Amino acid sequence: MKLTQKLTAEFVGTLMLLATVVGSGIMGETLAAGNTAVALWGNTAATGAILVVLILMFGPISGAHFNPAVTLVFLAQGQLKRTEAGAYIATQIVAAIAGVLLAHAMFDMALVQTSTHVRTGSGQWISEGVATFGLLAAILGTLRSKPDAVPYAVGLYITAGYWFTASTSFANPAVTIARSFTDTFSGIAPQDVAAFIGMQIVGAFIAMFLFKAFGQDKVDA
Amino acid sequence: MKLTQKLTAEFVGTLMLLATVVGSGIMGETLAAGNTAVALWGNTAATGAILVVLILMFGPISGAHFNPAVTLVFLAQGQLKRTEAGAYIATQIVAAIAGVLLAHAMFDMALVQTSTHVRTGSGQWISEGVATFGLLAAILGTLRSKPDAVPYAVGLYITAGYWFTASTSFANPAVTIARSFTDTFSGIAPQDVAAFIGMQIVGAFIAMFLFKAFGQDKVDA
Amino acid sequence: MKLTQKLTAEFVGTLMLLATVVGSGIMGETLAAGNTAVALWGNTAATGAILVVLILMFGPISGAHFNPAVTLVFLAQGQLKRTEAGAYIATQIVAAIAGVLLAHAMFDMALVQTSTHVRTGSGQWISEGVATFGLLAAILGTLRSKPDAVPYAVGLYITAGYWFTASTSFANPAVTIARSFTDTFSGIAPQDVAAFIGMQIVGAFIAMFLFKAFGQDKVDA
Amino acid sequence: MKLTQKLTAEFVGTLMLLATVVGSGIMGETLAAGNTAVALWGNTAATGAILVVLILMFGPISGAHFNPAVTLVFLAQGQLKRTEAGAYIATQIVAAIAGVLLAHAMFDMALVQTSTHVRTGSGQWISEGVATFGLLAAILGTLRSKPDAVPYAVGLYITAGYWFTASTSFANPAVTIARSFTDTFSGIAPQDVAAFIGMQIVGAFIAMFLFKAFGQDKVDA
Repeated sequence: MKLTQKLTAEFVGTLMLLATVVGSGIMGETLAAGNTAVALWGNTAATGAILVVLILMFGPISGAHFNPAVTLVFLAQGQLKRTEAGAYIATQIVAAIAGVLLAHAMFDMALVQTSTHVRTGSGQWISEGVATFGLLAAILGTLRSKPDAVPYAVGLYITAGYWFTASTSFANPAVTIARSFTDTFSGIAPQDVAAFIGMQIVGAFIAMFLFKAFGQDKVDA
Repeated sequence: MKLTQKLTAEFVGTLMLLATVVGSGIMGETLAAGNTAVALWGNTAATGAILVVLILMFGPISGAHFNPAVTLVFLAQGQLKRTEAGAYIATQIVAAIAGVLLAHAMFDMALVQTSTHVRTGSGQWISEGVATFGLLAAILGTLRSKPDAVPYAVGLYITAGYWFTASTSFANPAVTIARSFTDTFSGIAPQDVAAFIGMQIVGAFIAMFLFKAFGQDKVDA
Repeated sequence: MKLTQKLTAEFVGTLMLLATVVGSGIMGETLAAGNTAVALWGNTAATGAILVVLILMFGPISGAHFNPAVTLVFLAQGQLKRTEAGAYIATQIVAAIAGVLLAHAMFDMALVQTSTHVRTGSGQWISEGVATFGLLAAILGTLRSKPDAVPYAVGLYITAGYWFTASTSFANPAVTIARSFTDTFSGIAPQDVAAFIGMQIVGAFIAMFLFKAFGQDKVDA
Repeated sequence: MKLTQKLTAEFVGTLMLLATVVGSGIMGETLAAGNTAVALWGNTAATGAILVVLILMFGPISGAHFNPAVTLVFLAQGQLKRTEAGAYIATQIVAAIAGVLLAHAMFDMALVQTSTHVRTGSGQWISEGVATFGLLAAILGTLRSKPDAVPYAVGLYITAGYWFTASTSFANPAVTIARSFTDTFSGIAPQDVAAFIGMQIVGAFIAMFLFKAFGQDKVDA
């Protein structure tokens, strides 16, 4: 595939991902009559489901990263050139913000907003490290032995992550930046973005080193 | 397969799809004690699940379109003759309406109703464009590389679509027409049908052009 | 496999199925704080999930019928001998009742109960016909082209069926008889059992004739 | 794979499993506004989903036991050496407790707690026997014919188990010990641990004997 084709896939995929994360958060909160767990479930099911679909669709075109942490790990593993990685990451960030705006447009809201949702403190930071470690481990571990199952592994991992981490598993720097542009259910206040991203990168690279240590041997389960 | 066999599959599949969309909407609203998010979740899970099953069952017989937007795209791609496409679409519309009546019969309601559920405005229209773009992209993108995963991709896409679009993703002209015949949870007022269908067709063809631009190359994910 | 092995698989599978249907109904109703849709969702998710697992486990041993309507259709198609079918059905009924008792034992309830849950009328009867038609169509249609997907097709079909039919899709004569022995969420009053079973058999055979009409040709989807 | 690699996989997998079980229990209870069924659903979806992912990731490395009952059955079947089994079980217990502490850290709670959640009586004990029987049957039955489906079978089995057993299916001695260290939704009082573990071992070995009786023949379903 040509780079423009790959970047198109990254753009459309990340746009759809953020439209889903933010849109389903709005829908959930609007309908859930104050039961936040029900709202979170709507948000979870939509996000987990769309990830499977987007990776099925765009995996064979761009690798379906949609996530700078994934792109950085693949760069570090030599599976992507530096310029290509830079273009992927820039595209992911722009597309993620565009996806938030698209969600606002669909729900007849102000297109550009600033989140007031404070997400900070050691529990949240540990959560983002764990969340992104787990996401990369899911990708690298499944890719290693059962590549056809990667779309399902990622979708199911995020389904779990929304509930088992205190931060609901952003696990993606482009997603984190973009979610600061919505003052709805899934938002994050701008001042809390940097710490999330820092912990995400740390978690991602720990997963990379773990799977390096496992090598390429397989014991069939 | 003979055309009558294909049309039978389209008829039974579209009938079951609408019986599920409308029936699970009635069940959800009846039981959810005013928590509309819970009602929508019952509606979502049933619709997503039945789509997987119907495409597994009827995919090898008729291609399991159940949707004029899908049939039109396949016609434009030369995978269907014009007369066959016409017969598919007519069958889908008749079967969709029959499915609504079947849902009403199962729930002991008046068989023919007229929806009073207003669904209009730019947010809803953008939603239907996005929803149908995504549905066709899911189909064309998955069919291109992992055809066995198409039933799951469609079921999961609609699972997400019910939550991330403001219109709950009708994404299907036959479904839209038929849902104007029910004055229950999933209905749409007749005067709002045409705009939905227009946007659905636009969204579907944008997806077709996107995947034409990707060509048939594959980079294994 | 020997017949005793097959009957053991039918016994354990049907026992686990009913323990799940009835047990998850009790759990759901106990915890759902009066929101019946939430209770039904717990019941649905558990039943759909266990069906996938039981068919994966016991499919290669007994065919994983767990359902006299399935056994009768396979008998009519000549895939089972008459004596074998009789032994299957007797085992399914005994195991189903044992599963209800096991659920009661797990939840510290009186082992044998009689349901007072009235389920009658034309809407309910049409529902059972449609439900069992769809179940057999899911089995025969998926078996025909993608046999590995049958466990998922059945689990997802019942997930949908709990919501789109007014009767919540019993779709199984052994299940129907057994559920008259519990006065909990999933029960059915004994006087309503016969009509359900009659409609189930009718629905099952309509599906059989439909797939006979499709023959064995395949158009790859 | 070397034993240290296998033990690393068992450690990380069991840690993530417990972080998910306990973390999603905290999240569910915090958000569910008193509707315990909704809390249990969040707990269920997260646990079922993460199990699929962890088994996909670590199955080809350590076999993805994460459970002393599984390790003991594989030891009894001669698929593991005695010293290896001992190291697996010790690792699983330590990792499970570490996972509980990690969940507490993510949710800003006291790291070490003691559960006050009483879970006792014959219903609970029968439940744990049934739950672990079913879990091992799912593993052994699926492994026997469709090894690629094991991750899905286990995740779906536990999804059902959380609802159909009165104990919510601990089904794992390491999980049971570790859950006595949290005074949150998923805890179990220390004095109730031993009986649960006893019943789990009994249930696991009954499943082993059942599948020995089936032998290795297959009738294609």
